[in-house]
Amino acid sequence: MAIKHLSKDSVEPPKVPGSLRFYSMRFCPYAQRVQLILNAKGMPHDTVFIDLSDKPEWYLKIFPAGKVPALIYDDKFLSESLLLADFLDKQYPEPPLQASSPLQTILDKLVIESFGKVGTAFYKLIMTTKEIEKQNFDELVASLIPIETELVERGTKFFGGNKPNMVDYMIWPWFERLDAINPYSNGTFVIPFEDKFPRLAEWKSLMIADKAVAPYYITPEKHAEHFTKRKAGLPAYDI
Amino acid sequence: MAIKHLSKDSVEPPKVPGSLRFYSMRFCPYAQRVQLILNAKGMPHDTVFIDLSDKPEWYLKIFPAGKVPALIYDDKFLSESLLLADFLDKQYPEPPLQASSPLQTILDKLVIESFGKVGTAFYKLIMTTKEIEKQNFDELVASLIPIETELVERGTKFFGGNKPNMVDYMIWPWFERLDAINPYSNGTFVIPFEDKFPRLAEWKSLMIADKAVAPYYITPEKHAEHFTKRKAGLPAYDI
Repeated sequence: MAIKHLSKDSVEPPKVPGSLRFYSMRFCPYAQRVQLILNAKGMPHDTVFIDLSDKPEWYLKIFPAGKVPALIYDDKFLSESLLLADFLDKQYPEPPLQASSPLQTILDKLVIESFGKVGTAFYKLIMTTKEIEKQNFDELVASLIPIETELVERGTKFFGGNKPNMVDYMIWPWFERLDAINPYSNGTFVIPFEDKFPRLAEWKSLMIADKAVAPYYITPEKHAEHFTKRKAGLPAYDI
Repeated sequence: MAIKHLSKDSVEPPKVPGSLRFYSMRFCPYAQRVQLILNAKGMPHDTVFIDLSDKPEWYLKIFPAGKVPALIYDDKFLSESLLLADFLDKQYPEPPLQASSPLQTILDKLVIESFGKVGTAFYKLIMTTKEIEKQNFDELVASLIPIETELVERGTKFFGGNKPNMVDYMIWPWFERLDAINPYSNGTFVIPFEDKFPRLAEWKSLMIADKAVAPYYITPEKHAEHFTKRKAGLPAYDI
């Protein structure tokens, strides 16, 4: 299905009764986090895609920050990807995506928090220089070491054990994009997953096949195209 | 009791059985958040104060980021003020400091999140210019408007209702410091709480008397002195 992002002069589509109104952008990793939780929970939702380069006036009226992701629940406007993921997990408990012990929950949240370094290193690599620079690439590769170590120490297929939990879904969006470095750099830079991060390599192939991840997966080539256009000042959101 | 912050060549004090080991800094608003939750819960804890300008080697070994606040629980090293506060609230449920409904919980967390703007405006005011600049002061005052509005809309004494909850405790540390602007600027700048933020003015006087807040309260004059010394490159932590 074609996806159209709404821009400045658009009109907000009517809400669908019985569905959560979800504001998103198809290439936003933060919005993808929430989408994955909605998918994992099987929650009916109707998505409105926002053109972040030419934001709808009606959206800025309800949310002056104009960011995504956001949800409307019980007429309340809710934002912030990690808070939304937590909210959905508590409001719709099946399947549970967080540990039952408070200690394991904070340990999981600290993994998600520390993963922020990978996201920062990735955007530095792609967005702050004209071409990819070797030093930034090395920094990004180094930022993955603690994540591989974490998975080795857990000794399970997923961070969540036998199946994905909140950690898996919250960090996944950036792994989809890490594979875009190869086509984006025409094969000059490739993260050595098999050699250096064998557990993450296995985890990635399991995640791509996950029932919450698969329907929203974007290929490395499509991600690379999006980054190229965005850097050229011509962001293309619709696919 | 005199408070001594441990520096580079110190040795970590032995842990106290039956107490949570808490790493803090006496003037850190993020550490204060966790202290307030420990106080509210009546949790036995033994605090080790860290000299952030000359960090202990033993602390950097257990936590390379070298930040506070942090806690040891069940031999696990835990950090991040909001995550720690959540963890303590779940691990020690009495008295509960979060709403029982997931919706009210995320609404509360969004208030805490949005309060970040006040913190940013405050540090810009104090730390980025030699003297306080009128424009930065006006921005700080403007950042308080949504917080006053939130309290008016809730129509209760505290953000938590009849007594403080997580919102009250998570934002309190910055209010203690807002009152330091008066002595810090020798009376040139004073936040017009009574005139412009009457509900926050009442809330502040209730909070100062709260049993979790009072034992850890630092006067505006002491805060002002700390900022003056810190800006002079001579941070003084011990009091």
